[in-house]
Amino acid sequence: MSDDAPDGAQSLQMLDRDECLALLTGRGFLGRLGVIVDGEPLIFPVNYLADGRSVVFCTAAGTKLDAIVRGSPVTFEVDDHQPLHHSGWSVLVRGPASVVDDPGELARLRAGPLRSWVRGARANWVRIDIAEISGRRLPGI
Amino acid sequence: MSDDAPDGAQSLQMLDRDECLALLTGRGFLGRLGVIVDGEPLIFPVNYLADGRSVVFCTAAGTKLDAIVRGSPVTFEVDDHQPLHHSGWSVLVRGPASVVDDPGELARLRAGPLRSWVRGARANWVRIDIAEISGRRLPGI
Repeated sequence: MSDDAPDGAQSLQMLDRDECLALLTGRGFLGRLGVIVDGEPLIFPVNYLADGRSVVFCTAAGTKLDAIVRGSPVTFEVDDHQPLHHSGWSVLVRGPASVVDDPGELARLRAGPLRSWVRGARANWVRIDIAEISGRRLPGI
Repeated sequence: MSDDAPDGAQSLQMLDRDECLALLTGRGFLGRLGVIVDGEPLIFPVNYLADGRSVVFCTAAGTKLDAIVRGSPVTFEVDDHQPLHHSGWSVLVRGPASVVDDPGELARLRAGPLRSWVRGARANWVRIDIAEISGRRLPGI
């Protein structure tokens, strides 16, 4: 079978900014942080919250937090898929990340709905400003 | 509630190599490629197959393939989670990636079970040798 045969493979559809933000904020519990450590693009699942301007997550001390403190570039990805239908979507956020150190903001975040599943994670909060957001969808067969 | 309160948050358990390989190969359809493009750690979902030594996936021409041809470092991540139980696991593979160009190997891969959901993906096959594999689990509450 050639690569162009009608074998059920589909073309990826690009999503516009509003669609991406709706998927990012509607999903709302688990995404993946991409961070460069020692020249490698590591990927870590994190619990998160998002609105139209930023993504926040909390994290225990360690590799992720160290990289962010150093100013290493990060990305944030969410996706979902339905294997039986070969459908799914993914959204990628790019933008500057910073550790939240304003006491008032920290108090609001800690009083908010985000509960990491990992012990010790609520000690440190990180905000990624959504400078760019892009996404792709496979509608399914 | 303090960060150390018994609020259901759990400690991450590190997985050994055999556990990681079992999760990687038992999962077998969708993972995420981490690749550095213009200094940023991008994340792309891909359909994949794995055995104890390598991960293979196919991809249409584009950002992912360009980065691999240039020799940019890559990682490969798989995960799963159960929101109701706050449980889940993730596995991260590190190792050199190369475009498969041996005709015999390409023929075997194309005759094999991996069917990308994306049109045009079967033109280019990539192999990541599993140099390092690590993983973490949250057992759930």
